[in-house]
Amino acid sequence: MLLKLILPEEDQILSAFKWTEENLGHVHVLVNDAAFVSEELLTEGNTEIWKRSFDVNVVAPCFTTREAVKIIRKNDIKGHIIHINSVAGHKVSPVPKMNVYAATKHAITALSETLRQELNALGSKIRVTSVSPGLVVSEMTVLSKDISEERKKLFEVRPILQAEDIADGVVYVLSTPEHVQVLELTIKPVGEPH
Amino acid sequence: MLLKLILPEEDQILSAFKWTEENLGHVHVLVNDAAFVSEELLTEGNTEIWKRSFDVNVVAPCFTTREAVKIIRKNDIKGHIIHINSVAGHKVSPVPKMNVYAATKHAITALSETLRQELNALGSKIRVTSVSPGLVVSEMTVLSKDISEERKKLFEVRPILQAEDIADGVVYVLSTPEHVQVLELTIKPVGEPH
Amino acid sequence: MLLKLILPEEDQILSAFKWTEENLGHVHVLVNDAAFVSEELLTEGNTEIWKRSFDVNVVAPCFTTREAVKIIRKNDIKGHIIHINSVAGHKVSPVPKMNVYAATKHAITALSETLRQELNALGSKIRVTSVSPGLVVSEMTVLSKDISEERKKLFEVRPILQAEDIADGVVYVLSTPEHVQVLELTIKPVGEPH
Amino acid sequence: MLLKLILPEEDQILSAFKWTEENLGHVHVLVNDAAFVSEELLTEGNTEIWKRSFDVNVVAPCFTTREAVKIIRKNDIKGHIIHINSVAGHKVSPVPKMNVYAATKHAITALSETLRQELNALGSKIRVTSVSPGLVVSEMTVLSKDISEERKKLFEVRPILQAEDIADGVVYVLSTPEHVQVLELTIKPVGEPH
Repeated sequence: MLLKLILPEEDQILSAFKWTEENLGHVHVLVNDAAFVSEELLTEGNTEIWKRSFDVNVVAPCFTTREAVKIIRKNDIKGHIIHINSVAGHKVSPVPKMNVYAATKHAITALSETLRQELNALGSKIRVTSVSPGLVVSEMTVLSKDISEERKKLFEVRPILQAEDIADGVVYVLSTPEHVQVLELTIKPVGEPH
Repeated sequence: MLLKLILPEEDQILSAFKWTEENLGHVHVLVNDAAFVSEELLTEGNTEIWKRSFDVNVVAPCFTTREAVKIIRKNDIKGHIIHINSVAGHKVSPVPKMNVYAATKHAITALSETLRQELNALGSKIRVTSVSPGLVVSEMTVLSKDISEERKKLFEVRPILQAEDIADGVVYVLSTPEHVQVLELTIKPVGEPH
Repeated sequence: MLLKLILPEEDQILSAFKWTEENLGHVHVLVNDAAFVSEELLTEGNTEIWKRSFDVNVVAPCFTTREAVKIIRKNDIKGHIIHINSVAGHKVSPVPKMNVYAATKHAITALSETLRQELNALGSKIRVTSVSPGLVVSEMTVLSKDISEERKKLFEVRPILQAEDIADGVVYVLSTPEHVQVLELTIKPVGEPH
Repeated sequence: MLLKLILPEEDQILSAFKWTEENLGHVHVLVNDAAFVSEELLTEGNTEIWKRSFDVNVVAPCFTTREAVKIIRKNDIKGHIIHINSVAGHKVSPVPKMNVYAATKHAITALSETLRQELNALGSKIRVTSVSPGLVVSEMTVLSKDISEERKKLFEVRPILQAEDIADGVVYVLSTPEHVQVLELTIKPVGEPH
């Protein structure tokens, strides 16, 4: 069963996991896909927005992961944690006004590897995967109502992925045998300039 | 003149910058050296501590940098922003219970480059440097009153840097001619295992 | 049709491409999978073996790629170049006596990105993918007749991938729509220590 | 005493080390600064030039390092190996026709870390440093007689470092106390676009 949780406050997340455990018994797969970018210069940024960026993009995946791992380990099943990261988690691209976005995604890259090492040390077989897309059609990009005309134009001339392209990647990752861990799957549209 | 600001709330920081500007006229150099690590497993972490980690290690350097850049640009001087990063900003090492520390420092690596690109785009000559030490004697490591016996023992058998070794690196970085930008200075004690 | 070319001298490679073009008309996909590691300390290495390592692991994929791209562009088809890289192409792991192996694979990581940027600049739609496995059952690892007892024992206690696991990854990469480019697919066995 | 060896064939290098050992007794510091770039597209490259690129940029530093380490260890002194790497050793920049240059320098990045880990495992105190400059005035760049008009113009409008800027960095690296190892020193001219 697929539950889609729209980002939120921690207590709502905790309730959702509680409900899941009581009604479905366990969690097999967690896909963390929350992300938020505020179109501002870093040197003119707003502290509350920075905090919100790290809360949504990094801290929220930390506590959803903690809760999922707890349920997976209690039920002694083979689970899978997938972080939807970004190409910005690996390289800072020259798109202007990306604010702390690359910073939050670099943090996700580190969290994936920290989690993998920690689960190894605990002897757990839970798998961890970072999926890092380039530009994708989403509410954070071309479908956003908040982006500037400038950015809209930038996006319109650039090659772009469909959400399905990333979903197909996630399906491949989940379809691998239990001993196989895709650590990193980076997907770009052909022709992406950076 | 050297002002040492112990990490804090944003309003205190803003006051300190205001005081600096009124009393000293400008800021030439900002060294961001706050860091905080909570010795916990990621899978047993505490949400408030995660938020605090990103606030102290990443968001605080964002707003000190914003304020310093504002003063430097207003006075049209050549300034220098130095982030004291960590080897954990580049690679996740297998030291257990480092929690989100590597994630916060990977974020700093991205912020350095984001800032450099943004200042370039603005035509500013402000320089940005990331200094990334390995294990150093500090209140976050061997001088800490909060670390476990286990970690204390781990640290005791490992080669370690002195704070002066990092300070010497910062002095070198600051001593370079105006057109020279040290992007990254990574310093380890000889024999560091990872 | 699948042609498997065992690594070789350049003239043999050129003949193979010539034969392919004359008999099959074109090349759609090139998978570069040659690799060679000589179990020696870097500080006791042999110059001829170093040259051979770079010739086989890096220069050979350069000229097979050049030949394949030539045929693909001439026939105006959508082609795909896949480099079988390694986790050692991204991080130097503490396995002893790996000699220049990580160096050759880091070179492949750079070549993938250089090629992607160059094909972009040429307006070509040829896709480039780096597939980076951790430890895999192969003639370079556990099936090798040349490895030391020490390394054999090291490998025996480590989790390991099957060749099929990597082949499945390549099939996924090739199955993506034409506008989708998997840049990097890193695959480890669950439990790999580094 | 400073010996400057212009890149060469291995037997000349071996003679130079032999002469050094017989006449000066030992080697304290080795700075590997050979580099070669051939201004060609990767997809139109020449196999002999690729081999030469890896021989000069990567294999030559391997054997000079092997010889220097041998003498340093025999004399039980604290030595220092410095690789003059490049920003291209860390990131592939969009400068066209750089051929395998980034690949050779990525190999150097890996070799530095491989050597550091190997010397650690051997209990040696020899230090290893990678110094990675951006664009520098040199015979490989603006002073070259072989570069195209196009590249010359590209270089002329870009900020550039002087050789002294890198030499100052090397002096800083060498001036650190014996327990301090600068792993990486990346230096760019202020304003470098990538």
